[in-house]
Amino acid sequence: MAKSLNIGMIGYGFMGRAHSNGYRRVSNFFDLEYQPVLKAACARNEDAIKKFAATWGYESTETDWRKLVERKDIDAIDVCVPNNLHKEICLAAAANNKMILCEKPLAMNVAEGEEMCQAVEKAGVANTVWYNYRRIPAVTFAKQLIDQGKLGRIFHYRANFLQDWTISAELPQGGNGLWRLDAAAAGSGVTGDLLAHCIDTAIWLIGGVQNVSAMTETFIKERTHTETGKVQKVTIDDACSFLCRFNNGALGLFESTRYARGHKALYTLEVNGEHASLKWDLHDLHRLQWFDHRDEGNMRGWRSIHVTDSDHPYMNHWWVPGLQIGYEHSFVHQVADFCESLAKGTPCGPTFRDALETQKVCDAVLDSAKSGQWINV
Amino acid sequence: MAKSLNIGMIGYGFMGRAHSNGYRRVSNFFDLEYQPVLKAACARNEDAIKKFAATWGYESTETDWRKLVERKDIDAIDVCVPNNLHKEICLAAAANNKMILCEKPLAMNVAEGEEMCQAVEKAGVANTVWYNYRRIPAVTFAKQLIDQGKLGRIFHYRANFLQDWTISAELPQGGNGLWRLDAAAAGSGVTGDLLAHCIDTAIWLIGGVQNVSAMTETFIKERTHTETGKVQKVTIDDACSFLCRFNNGALGLFESTRYARGHKALYTLEVNGEHASLKWDLHDLHRLQWFDHRDEGNMRGWRSIHVTDSDHPYMNHWWVPGLQIGYEHSFVHQVADFCESLAKGTPCGPTFRDALETQKVCDAVLDSAKSGQWINV
Amino acid sequence: MAKSLNIGMIGYGFMGRAHSNGYRRVSNFFDLEYQPVLKAACARNEDAIKKFAATWGYESTETDWRKLVERKDIDAIDVCVPNNLHKEICLAAAANNKMILCEKPLAMNVAEGEEMCQAVEKAGVANTVWYNYRRIPAVTFAKQLIDQGKLGRIFHYRANFLQDWTISAELPQGGNGLWRLDAAAAGSGVTGDLLAHCIDTAIWLIGGVQNVSAMTETFIKERTHTETGKVQKVTIDDACSFLCRFNNGALGLFESTRYARGHKALYTLEVNGEHASLKWDLHDLHRLQWFDHRDEGNMRGWRSIHVTDSDHPYMNHWWVPGLQIGYEHSFVHQVADFCESLAKGTPCGPTFRDALETQKVCDAVLDSAKSGQWINV
Amino acid sequence: MAKSLNIGMIGYGFMGRAHSNGYRRVSNFFDLEYQPVLKAACARNEDAIKKFAATWGYESTETDWRKLVERKDIDAIDVCVPNNLHKEICLAAAANNKMILCEKPLAMNVAEGEEMCQAVEKAGVANTVWYNYRRIPAVTFAKQLIDQGKLGRIFHYRANFLQDWTISAELPQGGNGLWRLDAAAAGSGVTGDLLAHCIDTAIWLIGGVQNVSAMTETFIKERTHTETGKVQKVTIDDACSFLCRFNNGALGLFESTRYARGHKALYTLEVNGEHASLKWDLHDLHRLQWFDHRDEGNMRGWRSIHVTDSDHPYMNHWWVPGLQIGYEHSFVHQVADFCESLAKGTPCGPTFRDALETQKVCDAVLDSAKSGQWINV
Repeated sequence: MAKSLNIGMIGYGFMGRAHSNGYRRVSNFFDLEYQPVLKAACARNEDAIKKFAATWGYESTETDWRKLVERKDIDAIDVCVPNNLHKEICLAAAANNKMILCEKPLAMNVAEGEEMCQAVEKAGVANTVWYNYRRIPAVTFAKQLIDQGKLGRIFHYRANFLQDWTISAELPQGGNGLWRLDAAAAGSGVTGDLLAHCIDTAIWLIGGVQNVSAMTETFIKERTHTETGKVQKVTIDDACSFLCRFNNGALGLFESTRYARGHKALYTLEVNGEHASLKWDLHDLHRLQWFDHRDEGNMRGWRSIHVTDSDHPYMNHWWVPGLQIGYEHSFVHQVADFCESLAKGTPCGPTFRDALETQKVCDAVLDSAKSGQWINV
Repeated sequence: MAKSLNIGMIGYGFMGRAHSNGYRRVSNFFDLEYQPVLKAACARNEDAIKKFAATWGYESTETDWRKLVERKDIDAIDVCVPNNLHKEICLAAAANNKMILCEKPLAMNVAEGEEMCQAVEKAGVANTVWYNYRRIPAVTFAKQLIDQGKLGRIFHYRANFLQDWTISAELPQGGNGLWRLDAAAAGSGVTGDLLAHCIDTAIWLIGGVQNVSAMTETFIKERTHTETGKVQKVTIDDACSFLCRFNNGALGLFESTRYARGHKALYTLEVNGEHASLKWDLHDLHRLQWFDHRDEGNMRGWRSIHVTDSDHPYMNHWWVPGLQIGYEHSFVHQVADFCESLAKGTPCGPTFRDALETQKVCDAVLDSAKSGQWINV
Repeated sequence: MAKSLNIGMIGYGFMGRAHSNGYRRVSNFFDLEYQPVLKAACARNEDAIKKFAATWGYESTETDWRKLVERKDIDAIDVCVPNNLHKEICLAAAANNKMILCEKPLAMNVAEGEEMCQAVEKAGVANTVWYNYRRIPAVTFAKQLIDQGKLGRIFHYRANFLQDWTISAELPQGGNGLWRLDAAAAGSGVTGDLLAHCIDTAIWLIGGVQNVSAMTETFIKERTHTETGKVQKVTIDDACSFLCRFNNGALGLFESTRYARGHKALYTLEVNGEHASLKWDLHDLHRLQWFDHRDEGNMRGWRSIHVTDSDHPYMNHWWVPGLQIGYEHSFVHQVADFCESLAKGTPCGPTFRDALETQKVCDAVLDSAKSGQWINV
Repeated sequence: MAKSLNIGMIGYGFMGRAHSNGYRRVSNFFDLEYQPVLKAACARNEDAIKKFAATWGYESTETDWRKLVERKDIDAIDVCVPNNLHKEICLAAAANNKMILCEKPLAMNVAEGEEMCQAVEKAGVANTVWYNYRRIPAVTFAKQLIDQGKLGRIFHYRANFLQDWTISAELPQGGNGLWRLDAAAAGSGVTGDLLAHCIDTAIWLIGGVQNVSAMTETFIKERTHTETGKVQKVTIDDACSFLCRFNNGALGLFESTRYARGHKALYTLEVNGEHASLKWDLHDLHRLQWFDHRDEGNMRGWRSIHVTDSDHPYMNHWWVPGLQIGYEHSFVHQVADFCESLAKGTPCGPTFRDALETQKVCDAVLDSAKSGQWINV
């Protein structure tokens, strides 16, 4: 008989939907000891949260997150609100002995993140951060190949996260859905929103970053703010690139922007090793590109692996070879892994502590962009 | 307040899961007047169907489909069993005034199919056949472009459905999951299983087929039968290709096989028109390839359209641009369209009658392969 | 010291240039016993042929091919004129003991071709037909892989040759450059022009064709003829598709058209074998796609082999890995192989006799399209 | 009647062949006032240069370049020797009033380059540097599109040049063909060899670079030197990446390495503008990827333009649409443009002065990598 994992969800935006879908679907595809139950959804806007709860089947609603984190019938709090609210909610949740599943990035900065780590560690509660791309099967497969040593010594790592949705100067900043353009709510622009994903994956795949040299730009300097109705200075970074050295001696190159026409959400990564290289991109997320120097000399070539077989990560839970799954499944996988970790009593990465490493790189990147110096992480 | 649509599912295999997922998810993403309710699941194997019902949340189970189709609390019967059982169940379901959602192909042959059409039409019950590929957003988008006249006069249509899972001579025929290799259960091999999909889409996109010249082959002549344990003659077609002429004057070329190494489930289609061409394939199902001769002369090229924007078919119900959905979503879309048709009182294509057209082409193809003659459909 | 191979070229169109380039360049890149010398160029239009000779460095010109084939200082005749002139010229050249390099297709039909074969065989002169695609390095490499048995038993062969340059009804037929639209000069339309290439490669790669079922179409029924100035019936096939069975039991599917928008000269081929499959297309002619089932299970994928390494066919004569050569190089390779065969005293395929096999398939295809019957080759 | 342009070639390696091929072929495909004549080839190794001259049809040979630059019958000197010899030869050639076509990079550093610029400018001789990639038709086409304003304001430029041929620690440094691994002969490693190409194209396409932050690495610290036979410190950069800001406000990201498994010579570039983006890569050099935001909303996609039509740059000189040319043709184009500039009395870019701009960026990159600071160009 499965045990319940009662979820209290805070927020109802894009990520609120993605996580809810993860909770609802997991038991149809994974045979788990713990089964998530959508116990309560919370947001200040009562009408909105009631509608959201009805759509997703949450049993109840709250309009004050403080009440939610105190409810006895809640086991885990899911934090799907703008970044500037993460710390306060997490500290309160930890104080109430709730497990926490927090949206990325962990915090506004390293100082906040450190406080949050200490809180969950002190409380001894299970915690994880939704860096969901680790659990795209092709990316998880890349991790397996690297861990098996198939690449040998790593020379290069490069990643991009390119978008084009903010090019129009008419787009306002702030408010619903557009808080990502407001540094007060988001902490930073593409650095925390997009590069954080790239950094999390990189650290997971090949280890920590030693130092960085970065450059940022804000192409559109002023935009109307939806809350004040006034034209205000844009405080986020529209684009950010950085060079880095990894602890293992590999060189890294990262870039993110929301000004690259033609790229909707193109997260790409490539790793070059002594024996083999691999590549992946989010626009065709079900494929892993693989080049192996050990193949017969004149028959070497980049292989396009369609990661849909039952011996690929997570794929034995879905359909048959050749039939692709999508973006949302990465959240189902994270829920499945969280439930499994719970049963085993092990951490479910990335934990808050893991995510703090990514936060450190982000902070170093922003420092470097400001100072024009190489910064140690 | 949404109205319930009580589903009675017969079968629990690959398609049983895919349809169940469609019913369960639709209301999280589509705002519909009718909401499917998983009322009962039915199969002869009691343990298996109970486990299936528990996983998917069916309220009850049956082991005799005749009981199921008579239950008053069931609105619609979903037929997910081998092809040789379609007719009998559908006739009984229609006789009990149940709506029917039947797996493809409609029937073992045209004669059966005609009987089934008459049954549902006489009963006046809503009916549809699960030719799900129509509802992959990129394919639906192709339909819109053709209907808008963007291609002009159509010259060519070509489609392949290539797989490689039966190449090993060790693979047995018959029984659970392998009934597709047994003509007694399946009616035919790749013709009814794979080409039927290609034909359904083709007719939907550019209209009916006039005549065909076909060729079939069974590469492995004998296989062990899982039910008898004996080596028996293989009765299905392992591969089938055919030429055809469409009613609109276009030329068609179709091929299907389970002996094409490297192709897991590669359904591809291409349409060449006077002004433009389009291509699609199932291994990257979220993309539509588009070539437009009306583009500026030296800037013409095949466009790879990432069909993930909110103004692409169905996509406003899912995530944000650039984030792809998968195979299973085509079933969610078919459920959504079925519910919507119900609300409007219109048919939900492909109806049994639509699917009978595909059956006619399949029968003509098999006749042509046998006789070596061109056969009129 | 290299021996001279004195060339007498008849014609100065597209192929006249391509062959001339082959003769001029070969000695810069290949170390050969025989070196082609551009001795004479011939055409009825004196101004045109003098200009052509000046551009390419031919030592002399003729306006009557009968004179050319009788010249003592000519070793080999290159036939680059419309198909309806091939036979007469080749018979005369053979009678004068000239070697012959003849443009494809060999002849207007099998009867002509048989006569030509007998003429060169009786004369005992070296002969070859310019089915140049055999000598694209990626295609030659495919041949090596098949001959090494890496594919095992062959199940399927498919090839397309798709173009779109005759869609406009305004395009005239006949005359300079457009004789390919006139059956009196060309023999047939896409069948002899494009499918002949596909058939030659197929026979070379996997062996002969047993029987065919074909379909042709002429989409634009009438066009102005450039010579008469009148609107006349179009006598060629605009499109042709056929099914076939190979002698080795493999199934074949071929299609060619000049009505496929977006395809300039897209010759594609794919071979599916028991262990592996390969694909190639002319629009990216320096790549061979390769799938090997013997690769480690979950790491299988189509490899895109960039055929530019020194251990790829012909490539040790060119640049460094990664730097692609083009279409014209296939003619250089054929000249090199012809010279080498000459030194060794072996035939240089495809000989007239080899090319007659392709002619037989073309004739069977046209017969089948007319009769609606399967035709044995 | 064409005028002769008498070439004196110094060197006979990879570039010696590529340039010679350019000179020999240009008149077959371009109708020019000046026609190159292969007058003399020069190298210290007499046997080698005689063999080279015989292969390519040079009329004479020299073993001392000082003699060559003084010969009255030579119009232009082509410098195809290691970088450390460029300056001395160019100064002498200019002093003798010879035109100069110099291999890239221009010089060992900016100081040398400045001296060379002054020499040719003082002598008033035509001069050009073989940054050949500008004349790949797809790249030239990109230039036209940018110059027409089709991209609007430029936000991002990124380029990579990735190779993998020096990964083995067994590979020696120095000597024939391997002087590129010896800083004494090459000046630098990938920076001058590969990044210089990327920088030249970038400046040509979108203008000058303002400042840079760079990082270099030498992965294999010691290699046997072919001249001394001893294991010596490797003095070149194996890899180099840099961030930059262009004068027009765009952000740049460049990377080059010889340690990226799977990439033979993968030069890629991408430009993101307000209205459109474009991409190109050397492994499929006949294609330009184009994305235009002004296309109809839901039909936007990256177009793969097959740059082989007669209205594409240079392509009216070659074959027919769909038939690709290769790497070597870029040199033919540069010869054609040089001859045409000569006839018109205009400079043929990149001139020495143009190439000095690239040299300045290279020097700044190396300085930045050493100092860890942002460096103004």
